Amino acid sequence: MPKKNAVYAQSGGVTAVINASAYGCIEAARISAVIDDIYCGADGINGVLEERLIDLRGESPEHLAALRHLPAGAFGSCRRKLKDLKGDRAHFQRILDVFAAHDVRYFFYNGGNDSMDTVAKLHQFAGDHGYDLQVIGIPKTIDNDLPVTDNSPGFGSVAKYNSVSMLEGSRDMESMHRDSTKVFVLETMGRHAGWIAASTGLASRDDRDGPHVILLPEVPFDKADFLQAVERVVSRHGYCAVTVSEGTKDREGRFLSESGGKDAFGHVQLGGAGQVVQDLVKQELKLKVHGAVLDYCQRSGRHLASAVDAEQAQACGRKAVALAEEGMSGVMATIQRDGDDPYRWSLGHTDASNIANKEKTLPAEYIREDGYHITDGFRRYCLPLIQGEEYPPYHDGLPHYPRLKRELLPAKLPTYE
Amino acid sequence: MPKKNAVYAQSGGVTAVINASAYGCIEAARISAVIDDIYCGADGINGVLEERLIDLRGESPEHLAALRHLPAGAFGSCRRKLKDLKGDRAHFQRILDVFAAHDVRYFFYNGGNDSMDTVAKLHQFAGDHGYDLQVIGIPKTIDNDLPVTDNSPGFGSVAKYNSVSMLEGSRDMESMHRDSTKVFVLETMGRHAGWIAASTGLASRDDRDGPHVILLPEVPFDKADFLQAVERVVSRHGYCAVTVSEGTKDREGRFLSESGGKDAFGHVQLGGAGQVVQDLVKQELKLKVHGAVLDYCQRSGRHLASAVDAEQAQACGRKAVALAEEGMSGVMATIQRDGDDPYRWSLGHTDASNIANKEKTLPAEYIREDGYHITDGFRRYCLPLIQGEEYPPYHDGLPHYPRLKRELLPAKLPTYE
Repeated sequence: MPKKNAVYAQSGGVTAVINASAYGCIEAARISAVIDDIYCGADGINGVLEERLIDLRGESPEHLAALRHLPAGAFGSCRRKLKDLKGDRAHFQRILDVFAAHDVRYFFYNGGNDSMDTVAKLHQFAGDHGYDLQVIGIPKTIDNDLPVTDNSPGFGSVAKYNSVSMLEGSRDMESMHRDSTKVFVLETMGRHAGWIAASTGLASRDDRDGPHVILLPEVPFDKADFLQAVERVVSRHGYCAVTVSEGTKDREGRFLSESGGKDAFGHVQLGGAGQVVQDLVKQELKLKVHGAVLDYCQRSGRHLASAVDAEQAQACGRKAVALAEEGMSGVMATIQRDGDDPYRWSLGHTDASNIANKEKTLPAEYIREDGYHITDGFRRYCLPLIQGEEYPPYHDGLPHYPRLKRELLPAKLPTYE
Repeated sequence: MPKKNAVYAQSGGVTAVINASAYGCIEAARISAVIDDIYCGADGINGVLEERLIDLRGESPEHLAALRHLPAGAFGSCRRKLKDLKGDRAHFQRILDVFAAHDVRYFFYNGGNDSMDTVAKLHQFAGDHGYDLQVIGIPKTIDNDLPVTDNSPGFGSVAKYNSVSMLEGSRDMESMHRDSTKVFVLETMGRHAGWIAASTGLASRDDRDGPHVILLPEVPFDKADFLQAVERVVSRHGYCAVTVSEGTKDREGRFLSESGGKDAFGHVQLGGAGQVVQDLVKQELKLKVHGAVLDYCQRSGRHLASAVDAEQAQACGRKAVALAEEGMSGVMATIQRDGDDPYRWSLGHTDASNIANKEKTLPAEYIREDGYHITDGFRRYCLPLIQGEEYPPYHDGLPHYPRLKRELLPAKLPTYE
């Protein structure tokens, strides 16, 4: 069987280790018996639609090796979601046209729930139209909200970064609380799932270290009850550290703060929950409060990546190529947990349709009965994922994050759109 | 001459390396020919006033060695400022009483402008009252606003942390800006001086890396001009990263955001400038914007300390003991720059009265002509201070930050206040 070409593309919110997946996929493709060249979509699926395919032959081996420690999306990511096979029929056809023009028969799509929807649909569309294409998903999301897979690459690193940030912020307040700040509030990302907020709970290895109160999207926010919880901690320790997930909602399902905007996927753009909590503590409890919102710094904080996470991200990229070699399509690589102590894991796969548009929120067994902290079960789950420090190399005081050249293949088709 | 006892205490906002100064001071005191025991004030000068002196004999050698990589104030810090010799006469007398009760003749005070005011006044008060006391200041402030000394321990690490955060946040936005966020805003600490905000400028080693616009307290904020600057960058690159110092003011001297609170020193408690800038960009330019406020995480971010900063912090602690051995009092250890390329430094000292209540803001030669970025002169100044990565040890996925026992010496005096 003659070798065919492949395309790899990144999608959705980036992570500290998405480029490690790119590295795993690209390196495996280069030695694959079924893949000839591998190209990368510039800015995700947009680059495929616009026939902007990055020719990796323009990149130096050093730059490609640096993918293992580059944060954010080295090839560009996107928030574009192809909606349905009928409404976006022209887009799906265009993708096949571009692939046909460059003899592409393998497509590796590195993303989350929405991207796996594209994997499933593109797989179906190609089959319906008799185009021989294998579409494989590579999991990626800091939110850790993908079903089936035990965890998602990107989560371990954001969990480590936020846990360390909470530990350090809490120690700061502890050392000054006698005549300064009494409440420190850390707002985390995570959208509708509390995985990231919960992960900061790992920092409280004794009851003096924060977080003392964690606000999760899975637990309806009750103002009076929350303020009492904070007061109890302040009366015991003199200070209280609070983690609040950006997706925290009240009993009526209203977000603590709805900033009003929506992203390109139509999701409400969250943010501001930390400020709301700070204002509450200040106004109702009359306590001095400080707050941190780490925002993009948490999801691109490659300077503090989890070694386990970086390794799994790379392995998922390699696994996608293995799945392609086995003739699979419409599937996503998954991480399976084979043991907790010591932590053991292996790779598997599942139909992308099992992932598409589904959100795995924090199960009840990981949430302490009062709703304000994690259980030992969550610790057993999460602790293995933040193990190991994989630091990037530094040059002149700052991480060495070289930019790829991103030279494009010559276009063969007329301009689209 | 018989050896006498010493007290070390921490004051003001903590840093990632203040405990490295404590380590340097304590270790030098232990081998000093003039110092017998060294105790530590619990929670800064409060511990002296309340006769809560930490007996280091209760600490294990491992825990004391860990001071080199512990963030925040291991002995507790405070925001208490002794106002003047007349108004706070009782406090100054109490300090001498406590020192006399424990045969303390050396006092090492680790802090910033306000603390050096205490050093100067306590030195004078002891002299006026015939109490043989040597009072030595050890510099410490993330704000880098102490005069005379070339830089202050704590600044190099916060500069490194913020530069890396800006680099990573900017790369995140860059990789997704085509259909997502166009403007990323990072709010930094620094009070009335722009040193920290300026330090993020080190991250823009080429014009695609942020920050593209830096808002400094030293440059009056002009809304229309700022928005034009952002628009210019967005039209060139498609995105724009902005650093805003919490102390940024308009032409009338009003802070971008005055949160209304005041700290115990009577200073306006700043915060919220980042949100104001975000709102401006969103409302006036209709661009999608994200923002990070690193708050305490930046000043206690020991996981990413500058090795040069940690070394200088420790050296200043040792120098304070050397100054005591030389018979000095009412002075502060300083860092002198002996060369830029290669960077060379040595230690000196100055009268604490030269430091007290003075703020060294960013000089004009470090600010680009348009007011929105740094000059090569600032790069030459700042780059040496962020060199080297001195990581803390990790245990089970998180930094190993042991807590000291803080066992107190038995009190000898009646309770005070």
